[in-house]
Amino acid sequence: MERHIMHENAPPVLRRDEGAVAILTLNRPASRNSLSTGMLAALQAALDEVAADRDIRAVVLAAEGPAFSAGHDLKEVTAHRADADGGAAFFAGIMAACGTVMQAVVALPQPVVAAVQGIATAAGCQLAASCDLVVASTTAKFCTPGVDIGLFCSTPGVALARAVPRKSAMEMLLLGEMIPAGEAQRMGLVNRVMPPEAVLPTALALAQQIASRSAVAVQLGKRGFNAQQAMPLAEAYAAAGAVMVENLLAEDAAEGIGAFVAKRRPEWQHR
Amino acid sequence: MERHIMHENAPPVLRRDEGAVAILTLNRPASRNSLSTGMLAALQAALDEVAADRDIRAVVLAAEGPAFSAGHDLKEVTAHRADADGGAAFFAGIMAACGTVMQAVVALPQPVVAAVQGIATAAGCQLAASCDLVVASTTAKFCTPGVDIGLFCSTPGVALARAVPRKSAMEMLLLGEMIPAGEAQRMGLVNRVMPPEAVLPTALALAQQIASRSAVAVQLGKRGFNAQQAMPLAEAYAAAGAVMVENLLAEDAAEGIGAFVAKRRPEWQHR
Amino acid sequence: MERHIMHENAPPVLRRDEGAVAILTLNRPASRNSLSTGMLAALQAALDEVAADRDIRAVVLAAEGPAFSAGHDLKEVTAHRADADGGAAFFAGIMAACGTVMQAVVALPQPVVAAVQGIATAAGCQLAASCDLVVASTTAKFCTPGVDIGLFCSTPGVALARAVPRKSAMEMLLLGEMIPAGEAQRMGLVNRVMPPEAVLPTALALAQQIASRSAVAVQLGKRGFNAQQAMPLAEAYAAAGAVMVENLLAEDAAEGIGAFVAKRRPEWQHR
Repeated sequence: MERHIMHENAPPVLRRDEGAVAILTLNRPASRNSLSTGMLAALQAALDEVAADRDIRAVVLAAEGPAFSAGHDLKEVTAHRADADGGAAFFAGIMAACGTVMQAVVALPQPVVAAVQGIATAAGCQLAASCDLVVASTTAKFCTPGVDIGLFCSTPGVALARAVPRKSAMEMLLLGEMIPAGEAQRMGLVNRVMPPEAVLPTALALAQQIASRSAVAVQLGKRGFNAQQAMPLAEAYAAAGAVMVENLLAEDAAEGIGAFVAKRRPEWQHR
Repeated sequence: MERHIMHENAPPVLRRDEGAVAILTLNRPASRNSLSTGMLAALQAALDEVAADRDIRAVVLAAEGPAFSAGHDLKEVTAHRADADGGAAFFAGIMAACGTVMQAVVALPQPVVAAVQGIATAAGCQLAASCDLVVASTTAKFCTPGVDIGLFCSTPGVALARAVPRKSAMEMLLLGEMIPAGEAQRMGLVNRVMPPEAVLPTALALAQQIASRSAVAVQLGKRGFNAQQAMPLAEAYAAAGAVMVENLLAEDAAEGIGAFVAKRRPEWQHR
Repeated sequence: MERHIMHENAPPVLRRDEGAVAILTLNRPASRNSLSTGMLAALQAALDEVAADRDIRAVVLAAEGPAFSAGHDLKEVTAHRADADGGAAFFAGIMAACGTVMQAVVALPQPVVAAVQGIATAAGCQLAASCDLVVASTTAKFCTPGVDIGLFCSTPGVALARAVPRKSAMEMLLLGEMIPAGEAQRMGLVNRVMPPEAVLPTALALAQQIASRSAVAVQLGKRGFNAQQAMPLAEAYAAAGAVMVENLLAEDAAEGIGAFVAKRRPEWQHR
């Protein structure tokens, strides 16, 4: 109990840096890290801060408590039905804020590794699906149960549709059933399934591995990958080819390729 | 024999409702439920009827006999080569009718669960792939064998390309080999593989589960999911966010979320 | 040693035909079949030649030595840093040449089956991913290790993103780790995993199977499949439906469907 009170007085999102890795932790375990207005604002602020931080080269997104995130805060949603407009303005605002956070994860210059230690449901599942890589606990579960409450998980479906095959996404969205981590991995939603105690260390190790590489190469690459994804093939090659040329002309590529040819260790610019 | 004669006198597509689920059954077992002009017209009519039926909240698409569907009726195709134009008008007409049926399945307001009890080949494979969920028998097989008859399965490829990874689709299309249900499931074409006697009951149970949810949520959700699929990310989030707001303002979401917060069972509008 | 000298005097790409199948072999084992300017030019020339050869109905893309291809020639890249422009023109030229080769594989009228006998890294992985089907050795590995040298594999990412789920692609691109053939198959990058000695025979058998079919059907089909892939559904069906009508009006479809109905073997036009 005391521990929860302490948590609720703490910021909704904690940041701790380990070297060039920022670990962002959702810190409302008592409310299952629901994506309330306050949590979304705190997460957006943390992402904006990290985006502008040249010392950070990778991010871990973790969570406190039994849930990674249970999605929107339904008490908050319900309370706003008493608004003069029946909640219309609040609903539009929270969906916009949520969509902006999800796209900020995708657009963050640094790669983001989710450490999913518990259930990730609805917009919580969407948040995990929006990360570049996902490490999940053997005890984690993924679910888009909006159909149970008369609210189809349409925005989580945007992230799901871009991570897993169409029929897997439809099954999750239409049936709303809990998907164990192993099955989520077979679908393509999860990169690594680990015992509970290894989830955060594994996510951190992957982030450190990414952070040990050239920041300019990784950041050009992540941005370029996302840009080309929805393009027709010829356009995608033109865009990605331009990224390659820009990357080749950066000092880190000269250093990296030179080191490889000379069989020595590269020294990246950011060090 | 007598049974087949009876079947051929019966309509090509049977409809039977179980509560809010319509079960459509392809009923030309002797011709392996081929998608002749008559079958396509009957299927289109049945889909149009279901689409307009407010009492139906989910659909099972099943088939009689050893084949789910063997695709186009090749005798009919061959007969029209004697037309004055060598069949050109007939071919254009049948492809348009077939494409319209497939898109009607995708666009049907209600989710469609295929119950694939036997082989699903060519446009029959396409029909299964066009459904939202697929339950297949352990004895079912999927195949796009057009290359064997000099007619590449180009339109089935449209549905396949949206269900399975690119190289799996190309393998099916270029080689034309029979894919067992288990492999089709690994590819993403099938959601559940069941013993033969459990295929229809399982498809019906999934459809009943879907039908037990809010119709407005499910129908907004299915339509919105399909709309956002081909959009770039920002556009997809704008579209899906608008769907969420519309869904939140519907009575069923107020009821469903209210019931969840109050820990009682929701009562949907459609009941 | 002598063997390598012999290889280096031979053309960078060998062509050998077996019936209607052209086997193109990357033939710079000592430099791990790196995609140097010379190799890209030779591969482009070989593809152009095959594209125009009406007697060829399928292609196998194979390689000599322990590597399928190690991607760009980093010594060549490094040498051009001494150019007056720091290599900018060379880099733009080599990326354009490489992108053109990859798209030529995709756009080749005839299907291409890769026989990946060893490691396929960076643009070498991209080359395999660009083929229609991939047969890989149990000892083959796939990797996009650009991050190790400060050069993110952005153009390989274009081909990867179209072959495997998004998180699998990001994992390969961000971590740069070697992916064994079996895992590559689960991702969707590989169609068949075979013992080393069976790789080329299997690729050749698949190519022969494709070559035994109607050339007009296969070529209309491959081109049409690629064209519809990035289209919205209605547009894709309109395009693929037009391909079906064109295919139905070709002599091979009349022959193939007629033979099927009459239960005899078809005789394709190209024989």
